[in-house]
Amino acid sequence: MEQNIGFIGLGSMGAPIAANLMHAGYRLKVYNRTASKASPLTEKGAVLVDHAADTANPGGIVLTMLADDHAVEKLCLEKPSFVENLGPGGIHISLSTIAPATARKLAEHHVTHGVTYLAAPVFGRPEAAAAKKLWVCVSGPSSAQERTEPILHAIGQGIFPFGEDVGAANAVKLCGNFLIAAAIEAMAESQVLAEKNGVDPKALVEMLGSTLFACPIYQGYGKQIAEQRFEPVGFRLALGLKDINLTLQTAAASSVPMPTASLLHDRWLAAVAKGRAEMDWTAATLNVAEDAGLLAKSAKAGQG
Amino acid sequence: MEQNIGFIGLGSMGAPIAANLMHAGYRLKVYNRTASKASPLTEKGAVLVDHAADTANPGGIVLTMLADDHAVEKLCLEKPSFVENLGPGGIHISLSTIAPATARKLAEHHVTHGVTYLAAPVFGRPEAAAAKKLWVCVSGPSSAQERTEPILHAIGQGIFPFGEDVGAANAVKLCGNFLIAAAIEAMAESQVLAEKNGVDPKALVEMLGSTLFACPIYQGYGKQIAEQRFEPVGFRLALGLKDINLTLQTAAASSVPMPTASLLHDRWLAAVAKGRAEMDWTAATLNVAEDAGLLAKSAKAGQG
Amino acid sequence: MEQNIGFIGLGSMGAPIAANLMHAGYRLKVYNRTASKASPLTEKGAVLVDHAADTANPGGIVLTMLADDHAVEKLCLEKPSFVENLGPGGIHISLSTIAPATARKLAEHHVTHGVTYLAAPVFGRPEAAAAKKLWVCVSGPSSAQERTEPILHAIGQGIFPFGEDVGAANAVKLCGNFLIAAAIEAMAESQVLAEKNGVDPKALVEMLGSTLFACPIYQGYGKQIAEQRFEPVGFRLALGLKDINLTLQTAAASSVPMPTASLLHDRWLAAVAKGRAEMDWTAATLNVAEDAGLLAKSAKAGQG
Amino acid sequence: MEQNIGFIGLGSMGAPIAANLMHAGYRLKVYNRTASKASPLTEKGAVLVDHAADTANPGGIVLTMLADDHAVEKLCLEKPSFVENLGPGGIHISLSTIAPATARKLAEHHVTHGVTYLAAPVFGRPEAAAAKKLWVCVSGPSSAQERTEPILHAIGQGIFPFGEDVGAANAVKLCGNFLIAAAIEAMAESQVLAEKNGVDPKALVEMLGSTLFACPIYQGYGKQIAEQRFEPVGFRLALGLKDINLTLQTAAASSVPMPTASLLHDRWLAAVAKGRAEMDWTAATLNVAEDAGLLAKSAKAGQG
Repeated sequence: MEQNIGFIGLGSMGAPIAANLMHAGYRLKVYNRTASKASPLTEKGAVLVDHAADTANPGGIVLTMLADDHAVEKLCLEKPSFVENLGPGGIHISLSTIAPATARKLAEHHVTHGVTYLAAPVFGRPEAAAAKKLWVCVSGPSSAQERTEPILHAIGQGIFPFGEDVGAANAVKLCGNFLIAAAIEAMAESQVLAEKNGVDPKALVEMLGSTLFACPIYQGYGKQIAEQRFEPVGFRLALGLKDINLTLQTAAASSVPMPTASLLHDRWLAAVAKGRAEMDWTAATLNVAEDAGLLAKSAKAGQG
Repeated sequence: MEQNIGFIGLGSMGAPIAANLMHAGYRLKVYNRTASKASPLTEKGAVLVDHAADTANPGGIVLTMLADDHAVEKLCLEKPSFVENLGPGGIHISLSTIAPATARKLAEHHVTHGVTYLAAPVFGRPEAAAAKKLWVCVSGPSSAQERTEPILHAIGQGIFPFGEDVGAANAVKLCGNFLIAAAIEAMAESQVLAEKNGVDPKALVEMLGSTLFACPIYQGYGKQIAEQRFEPVGFRLALGLKDINLTLQTAAASSVPMPTASLLHDRWLAAVAKGRAEMDWTAATLNVAEDAGLLAKSAKAGQG
Repeated sequence: MEQNIGFIGLGSMGAPIAANLMHAGYRLKVYNRTASKASPLTEKGAVLVDHAADTANPGGIVLTMLADDHAVEKLCLEKPSFVENLGPGGIHISLSTIAPATARKLAEHHVTHGVTYLAAPVFGRPEAAAAKKLWVCVSGPSSAQERTEPILHAIGQGIFPFGEDVGAANAVKLCGNFLIAAAIEAMAESQVLAEKNGVDPKALVEMLGSTLFACPIYQGYGKQIAEQRFEPVGFRLALGLKDINLTLQTAAASSVPMPTASLLHDRWLAAVAKGRAEMDWTAATLNVAEDAGLLAKSAKAGQG
Repeated sequence: MEQNIGFIGLGSMGAPIAANLMHAGYRLKVYNRTASKASPLTEKGAVLVDHAADTANPGGIVLTMLADDHAVEKLCLEKPSFVENLGPGGIHISLSTIAPATARKLAEHHVTHGVTYLAAPVFGRPEAAAAKKLWVCVSGPSSAQERTEPILHAIGQGIFPFGEDVGAANAVKLCGNFLIAAAIEAMAESQVLAEKNGVDPKALVEMLGSTLFACPIYQGYGKQIAEQRFEPVGFRLALGLKDINLTLQTAAASSVPMPTASLLHDRWLAAVAKGRAEMDWTAATLNVAEDAGLLAKSAKAGQG
């Protein structure tokens, strides 16, 4: 087993993933812009390095979990970069949710350094990451998929391969997040309709969540929306909007009109405009209630 | 046990439901506009009557499963009607998907004849009805709910009570169908996006349907859309549009803007305009592909 | 010249129209549900009758200007009705904005009494009506169009004939109101965009209103929206929503998806839900500003 | 009068604008990627230079009319650039439709070379440019506005100043184009509704275009849509989509949800997906007709 690997990005998702890798026996060199966040890991033996580039061992493996396309690109293209330091035989496992186009561009860049780019975006919120319950979508060269399989198994409950096109796994991730956002919006609309027609939204969620929609998304988010509970923040609203925008950009680049995604864009953008960027992304549903004249609740929540 | 009951409406849903009632030991007087459809039931002992009103025994129970609000209203208000014939102590179990407002109006009408209106719309397609796998939502006077419980148990796998407001159960049914339609549209959009970005839609469905969206709606419909298989017709597209319109009307009456429902209205209406009213309602997704320039497939399907 | 005619409906539009007819020399028998509104007319010689049916002279002409389809239908179908009293040779000039389908249905009904239904919906707000500046769209039997031409000339500045189909003129009226509402929404969106990007909305309106969009709708409404001035009420918001809904119903009946109309429906419905039904219909644009986080202004306006 | 100026970009808009400048007495050094397009100008005395940078005289004025943000940025940032060659006291009049954010970024860049960036986007199609009928929106330092006034007067029929923020004029231009696109979509929807309800779309356009909407946009585009005439290409559909996207990006950057713009994005993107990118941008309305089942016409037009 490959034991020494690098890990960059110790945010709410990266930190628990890195912890699971250590738990599985990997020795980590870690880097984070805010170094203090590395403490829980260094206490268990991880080595904190001063520069992202220093996380790489020649021919080794580095995982990155960063906020957006820009952050990933910057890190890969800076001089010196961890990609250069990986060099021939190295693999970059990119866990971030970014555009398929960005992944493809970086894969081409990596090749010039002899490095393989492997897209491995994950589904799951921080608590799922901590519980090793992530779902991992992988795409890229199959040899790299094979070599990194133990690593990915150490961080999730299932790996789904989507072929050799590095853009594919990110496309799946965007599709998944889009479907979740669409379900959130639709649930919110249906709950307001129910409430105004003599049905307790919680009862609606319970019925549908135990029958037609007996799956995590409808059960978990459905309950959360019915209770108007937008804390703790599992996924920041601003990041939710970022993902919807990535979906729309990818759709535009491949000429796919997605009216539902457009609607979601408008809804989440309104939430940002109303000052809710730092709330959980389900707080976008407040606007559904407000548009139906249910102002009191939302006003309260707006102050939260 | 109450053994003699009436049943009106032997379409693709009504017929298997009536069969299950007979299987459970009920003796049925049945009526259908097209009498020939009653044959499978009369062969097993059901009595076919000439007029809908004749299905009722004084103080007894009649179930109706009809196409739309208009059909239910007409049947209840004609002279003589099965409602009049039920008279004091009678119960009308209305299985149809209609507007909460219509249910409330009929409940008021029934009271003048001493009859209780019980809303009991069901979730499930014809094959689910045949397999006794329907989910039944019930609302109306609790005494009527109690008395009819064995009957409803005989036709489904679960009963969900939503209180005494007869409009409530229909509101839940509309919410459910709306959520299904919203999921169909979102899945179609995501699949076209996936397809144009190097991902096989079937693999997408398999991944999401076994993880985040591991529930009947996403698994069944997801597969159907990915395979562009719109036959056999489980639910006629024209009826799907009818339900979306009922949702929008109910939403308008209670001042609930539902932009997703508006979008679905436009999508399904386009499908009707393109001559697909008699296909399965998932055929509305053809337009998603067409809007993305995937013309060949849809043209083929359009001829189907 | 035909001098004795009937007029039913003396609201904010009907009253000034009736006044112009009197000014042109017609003698009027008038009816209004709230009789007191007839005073300005009776003072000038109009005869106020107790029942709508009494406005009709056999074989004569009656104009109606009512709030909605329901009001027109009720008046035409009551017993005795002004239509019956008109009898053979009579003409009913219907000025109200109603559905083409309703107009066609009433035309069929009128024929059984020997009466001709003439659709003559008008464009213009109350001040335009008072100034004899209305634009009149007419459709129906050409003989009736000829006979009523002097009357229609007396109330507007231009008559536009749209053939013999009585539904046609109302279709044009719905198209016109739809285009106005669409322009209002688009102007509001553009003004908020301008405001947040260093451009004074009033300067934007002035520039566009004197060049590309140098026409009444963009000049008048544009200014009103830029100034957030929603009083006096030229056209009640609730009536605006009614017209958008008529458009959507007519579109649905003829299988025409109109996504812009759906969007307008949601916008105006939100305005009603927020308690703005009695404001001018341009107050729907408050929601555009609110969705962009411009809460202070709208809160103020909401109290107006 | 300043007589020697530079001009870069001789496309369908740039060429007639440059010709008007020459007609007004200016001596031009011109540059175009495809040099052959300069012939009509060089025949009249313009000097064609080999490199864009060579159009600039120290401290002088250069106008640019390019396709998009990327093209403008590339030209300004290349080495050597016309901006460097202008140097202290120079003015860059940027006629292109670009994002306010890009204009602001370039203005900052120019300052480092002592050059003033002046935003001067124009309204009007190629024939208006040729006829000196453009409307020019200007923003940027007032001294530069004063100095360039004669030049701008030589190319249009009116100049509208929008202050010193260089982003402002482009924001106005985006608002204007957005309003035009919104009007095109709404007109198309209304015409299909009219056509299916007994009204000739041409009669509808004539009525509205001579009354409520008596302005160039509704008259010109309305007629074009009614006649389904998408040639000659006044404004390429792909460029129309580019402008709608600029609007959405600018709106997103300033947190302004614009549902109408989202709808337009989807409509124009579908047109591109259907292979209509090179048609006139009004060809996006074909999809409105297609969604209403009017397939024959669109199929024909699709081949055009």
